[in-house]
Amino acid sequence: MPVNLALPDPDKLFPIAGVRIGVTEAGVRKPGRKDLTVMLLDEGTSVAGVFTTNRYCAAPVQLCRTHLGQGKGIRALLINTGNANAGTGADGMARAQSTCDALARKLGLASEQVLPFSTGVIMEALPADRIVAGMDAAIADAQPGNWLRAAEGIMTTDTVPKAYSSRVEIGGRWVHITGISKGAGMIRPNMATMLGFIATDACIAPTLMQELAWELAEGSFNRVTVDGDTSTNDSLIVMASNRAGNAPVTSLSSAEGQALKLAMLGVAKDLAHAIVRDGEGATKFITLQVEGGRDAAECRRVAYSIAHSPLVKTAFFASDPNLGRILAAVGYAGIADLDQNLIDLFLDEVHVVVQGGRHPAYREEDGQRVMRQSEITVRVGLGRGHASDTVWTCDLSHDYVTINADYRS
Amino acid sequence: MPVNLALPDPDKLFPIAGVRIGVTEAGVRKPGRKDLTVMLLDEGTSVAGVFTTNRYCAAPVQLCRTHLGQGKGIRALLINTGNANAGTGADGMARAQSTCDALARKLGLASEQVLPFSTGVIMEALPADRIVAGMDAAIADAQPGNWLRAAEGIMTTDTVPKAYSSRVEIGGRWVHITGISKGAGMIRPNMATMLGFIATDACIAPTLMQELAWELAEGSFNRVTVDGDTSTNDSLIVMASNRAGNAPVTSLSSAEGQALKLAMLGVAKDLAHAIVRDGEGATKFITLQVEGGRDAAECRRVAYSIAHSPLVKTAFFASDPNLGRILAAVGYAGIADLDQNLIDLFLDEVHVVVQGGRHPAYREEDGQRVMRQSEITVRVGLGRGHASDTVWTCDLSHDYVTINADYRS
Repeated sequence: MPVNLALPDPDKLFPIAGVRIGVTEAGVRKPGRKDLTVMLLDEGTSVAGVFTTNRYCAAPVQLCRTHLGQGKGIRALLINTGNANAGTGADGMARAQSTCDALARKLGLASEQVLPFSTGVIMEALPADRIVAGMDAAIADAQPGNWLRAAEGIMTTDTVPKAYSSRVEIGGRWVHITGISKGAGMIRPNMATMLGFIATDACIAPTLMQELAWELAEGSFNRVTVDGDTSTNDSLIVMASNRAGNAPVTSLSSAEGQALKLAMLGVAKDLAHAIVRDGEGATKFITLQVEGGRDAAECRRVAYSIAHSPLVKTAFFASDPNLGRILAAVGYAGIADLDQNLIDLFLDEVHVVVQGGRHPAYREEDGQRVMRQSEITVRVGLGRGHASDTVWTCDLSHDYVTINADYRS
Repeated sequence: MPVNLALPDPDKLFPIAGVRIGVTEAGVRKPGRKDLTVMLLDEGTSVAGVFTTNRYCAAPVQLCRTHLGQGKGIRALLINTGNANAGTGADGMARAQSTCDALARKLGLASEQVLPFSTGVIMEALPADRIVAGMDAAIADAQPGNWLRAAEGIMTTDTVPKAYSSRVEIGGRWVHITGISKGAGMIRPNMATMLGFIATDACIAPTLMQELAWELAEGSFNRVTVDGDTSTNDSLIVMASNRAGNAPVTSLSSAEGQALKLAMLGVAKDLAHAIVRDGEGATKFITLQVEGGRDAAECRRVAYSIAHSPLVKTAFFASDPNLGRILAAVGYAGIADLDQNLIDLFLDEVHVVVQGGRHPAYREEDGQRVMRQSEITVRVGLGRGHASDTVWTCDLSHDYVTINADYRS
């Protein structure tokens, strides 16, 4: 039961010139599921990626890094669900490579121009033969209007496909942005999504792409968490087809660069929030704002400490204003010289804690009222400085346990 | 449903000469519960403590630190359940102080000779009046044989009282050790128990007590976790009444010191394991051994990363050998130069992963068989060195969510 998350309206998703998408049912793990997606990119498309910080990264993530580093111009993305090809050793690398080789052959490309992505169960052999067998149908399906199909094609435990678009005028030309993401569990910063793909038709200097990808990740996917489990396969790919006809953006800090980045960040945030709203078992969407820190890093640390506390998360699930659990999580966030007597805590506009203790005017029924909402903002003041940061998360419910106890069955 | 955790046999709990215990129903939060315990210590008892690292530590923890630092000789411990007196600011400090003052007056002591302990709900005002009103009954109840009653008197969400004894011959004299603990949720290293009390009648130089307390905590309570939530109130108190008649132990590295420490560590480990076995909703007791690290700290870091992963914990609950989740948790433990191609993974004696990939001889039914057990050892080889460390934890079940969603109701 996703939290205030509507099905995407296909009429509101902009096609991106230069990007064609095809989806098919390859039977990777189970029959009758859209589980194989290709994205075919016109020549001249710039591509950059941000990948999981998990040291146990999957074979496709390792290949993506290698292929992006070779600079031959990425022309195709190959995405399967049902199998993560992680924890599979040298055999997994060979299987990922063989799928890139096969798609490159069919498209007349070099293997290094293909980026592979896998999501699903860890530590099982990738059925490369079934993926290769499905490629022709996926290629035949390819067209620019298929973003919603692609969002469906990359789902695993997601209950809702995630796709958002935006447009912005850059130097007198409309440029379009469309992105999709998937992910509901094994979600934690660095990267917080299993898979995210954002494309724009904007013209932008290729040298800016990596910086742009990092900034988008930092402002969106790297600020959400469901369960604190950093996946082995997280990947965010940012693509610019350079077809909109605007004068190329040559700096992210120019007016045009700022406008483009802001519009793309809007899509990235929507995609990241959608992952939390569709978090496994989520019943509430929670915004954690930490203010008054010495720097943003310590604010973020406190926010994640709250976001990862099972006790806090179960209290949100129960709509129980057992807010001392939030104070405890603030206290163990690892700020050695934190002064508990300076802490403030707000639940939406309700002032709960002042100078580290219960606010004299705080009434349990006010906390209770906010806790019953499906969207809640927790604001913590540290009283140490002027920095702040924000993290988004969801609650921990019975359904989270059910989903993850049953995931493979 | 605790995991292989029997009710303590009162006949196997040694009284400790010089320590008398009284328990009563003071109605701190609800009527009809043993919720107030006093421990009365003869003059000459040495006391040391280890407390939570949570910066949001409770008022009683702050008072304990102050009173222990004043060196007047601790003569009484005052323990209430039902209210943690944490997140209560200056008012909470005053209330904790007033209970120490009252007990000191009744016993003819200075207030600094009393250590207060509180456990229960955070951020509510301590009903000091009800605690003071219950003191006379608790004092009247005091006798050396009351350890099991005390273990019952300090329970909150625990389902089984936790009490263990041991004895050891030191210099031709039997010395006795008895300890109790409580805790089932908000359990994580530094300190991993809400409350633990271990007493011995051994004669030991007072200067060794703090070191002894640290070593006992490090080898036991600081190696267990239920939910990763470090409490605001965790306290371990070690007491030596110096009544056994042995020649005083003057060094922990002497033969006598080692023997005493080992016997006390046995009790401390039993108490710490009992907390995990009675962990909120626990159905499995899991030992995480990490080997082949460069130092023990990184082994411990990997072990806690596995122990805190909700995905790993729900897989244990489901008896599902979805062991890739363990690999993912190893990968995100924060060892920057970890080489995934050197990782080994064993489930009991089943070799699951070799050189980072699935072992060719591994069969799912072997993993399944081990996962069904109520006691499981996970062994991870990092392939980087010769250090190792061990952490104990439990699974994450529906009952954890139920208990913590309903705790205050």
